[in-house]
Amino acid sequence: MNLILLFDDDFFGGSRVRLTGRRLQHVTDVHRAAVGEELAAGAADGRIGRGTITRLDAEALEMDVVLDRDPPPPLPLTLILALPRPKVLNRVIAGAASLGIKRIVLLNAWRVEKSYWSSPRLSPDNLRAQSILGLEQARDTVLPSIETRRLFRPFVEDELPALAHGTRALVAHPRASEVCPRDVREPVTLVIGPEGGFIDAEIASLERAGFTAVSIGERILRVETAVPYLAARLY
Amino acid sequence: MNLILLFDDDFFGGSRVRLTGRRLQHVTDVHRAAVGEELAAGAADGRIGRGTITRLDAEALEMDVVLDRDPPPPLPLTLILALPRPKVLNRVIAGAASLGIKRIVLLNAWRVEKSYWSSPRLSPDNLRAQSILGLEQARDTVLPSIETRRLFRPFVEDELPALAHGTRALVAHPRASEVCPRDVREPVTLVIGPEGGFIDAEIASLERAGFTAVSIGERILRVETAVPYLAARLY
Repeated sequence: MNLILLFDDDFFGGSRVRLTGRRLQHVTDVHRAAVGEELAAGAADGRIGRGTITRLDAEALEMDVVLDRDPPPPLPLTLILALPRPKVLNRVIAGAASLGIKRIVLLNAWRVEKSYWSSPRLSPDNLRAQSILGLEQARDTVLPSIETRRLFRPFVEDELPALAHGTRALVAHPRASEVCPRDVREPVTLVIGPEGGFIDAEIASLERAGFTAVSIGERILRVETAVPYLAARLY
Repeated sequence: MNLILLFDDDFFGGSRVRLTGRRLQHVTDVHRAAVGEELAAGAADGRIGRGTITRLDAEALEMDVVLDRDPPPPLPLTLILALPRPKVLNRVIAGAASLGIKRIVLLNAWRVEKSYWSSPRLSPDNLRAQSILGLEQARDTVLPSIETRRLFRPFVEDELPALAHGTRALVAHPRASEVCPRDVREPVTLVIGPEGGFIDAEIASLERAGFTAVSIGERILRVETAVPYLAARLY
C-alpha cells in the first residue's frame, strides 16, 4: 500500500479521516507508523497528498490530510478481456488498475470455461476491492469501471463499435501477421483473448467490428503478463 | 502448455518420446488430444517443432517428433531481482521465463524479509519447474539460469560490474529523476528492488557499480507487473 485510498465515509470535519479495519491493520503491521508521521493518501476519484497521523491505536488510525496534487494520468487504454480463470482474475484486475487502465470489460468467448462465470470473484464488491489494491499500489485514486458481458456476439456487434469509436482498435492474437504497434500516442481499445486464444469466427467478428489482429511475436504470454507487456508497448 | 518441453530422458530410438506424469495428464485433460493428432513440442535447450501422437492412454503418451525450427530469440536482458515474497516468486519466475529472459539473479536487499530466504520455493527443483512452465507457455526451450545471492554488497561490488560489462546497466527506482529508456536495441542488465524499494545506500552502491537509476513514472508497480512492463518498454 503505497497510498492510502480514502472514501467519503472516512472523513469527519473537513480534512480529518478516521480509518479502521484493513487500512488500520496495514499501517500498524506493515508501515509500523507512529503519531506525527506522514503517509501518502488520496481521495477516491480525487486528489493525492499526505496525511499526518494524529492517532494510531488498536481501534483507529486518524490523520489530518492535505490533498494538493492530481493523481497520475490515466492510461488511455480500454481493455476488453476474455474472462480469465478465477485463480488469476484478482491479480489481473489489480495489475490493470495499477497500470492506470480505467475501463475494463470482461467478456465471454468460446474458450472461456462456463464455470468461470459463477466465480464469487466476479462480484462487484470483489472487483472493486481488487481495483483498490491496484490503485493503492500505484498511488492512483481513480477507480476503473469494470463491466461483464456474457454474450460475445451481441457485445461485439452492437456495443463494441461505439465503445471503440475514435480509438485504435486492436485484438492481440498470436497468429496475426501484423505486428503490434509501439508508442501509439492515441487512445486504444485492446481486446485480449482467453487461454488458447479466440477461435477464427471470433477474430472475424472482431475484424468486422473494426479491430485489427496484431501479434507480439512468437511467444504466447499469460494474460497477467500480456496486460502489462502490451500496456508498456502501446504507450 | 503451448509447447511440450522434452528432455533427454524422454527420448527412445531417435525421434520417439514417451511421457508420463504431468505432461501426460495435461495432454489428456486439457488438450484432450488423440492418436494421430499433432502437438507443438521442443527439446530442452534445442529446437522446436511438432510431435505426432502414436500412443495415448492412462500410462503414457508417445509421439514421433520432428524438431525443425529454432525457438524464439532470447530477450537480451539479465534480470537482477531483489528476492520477491515466496507467494509471488513462482509466477515472477514463470513470467520472466515466458518473456525470454535467460539469466536471473535473486538478490538480498535491506527490505527483503529474512524469512523469504528459507522458502522451499527457492529450491533449484522448484525454480526449474517454474521456468519450464514459463517456457511451455511461450513455446521456448532454452532454460534460464537462476542464481541466488544472499549478500548484497559483495555481489554488487565484486560480481555485478563484470556481469553487467558491455550492457546498459539500469536500476528501476521510483524516485529516480531519469526516465527509463525505450527500445534500447542493446543488451540490458536490469535491477529491480524489493517491495518498498531499495534504500539510498543500496542505490548508491549500484550507481558506483555503473548502474543508472531510472523511473517509469509516478506509478509503483508490483514486481510481477514491473517485469513484463519493463521488458516491453526496453525492447
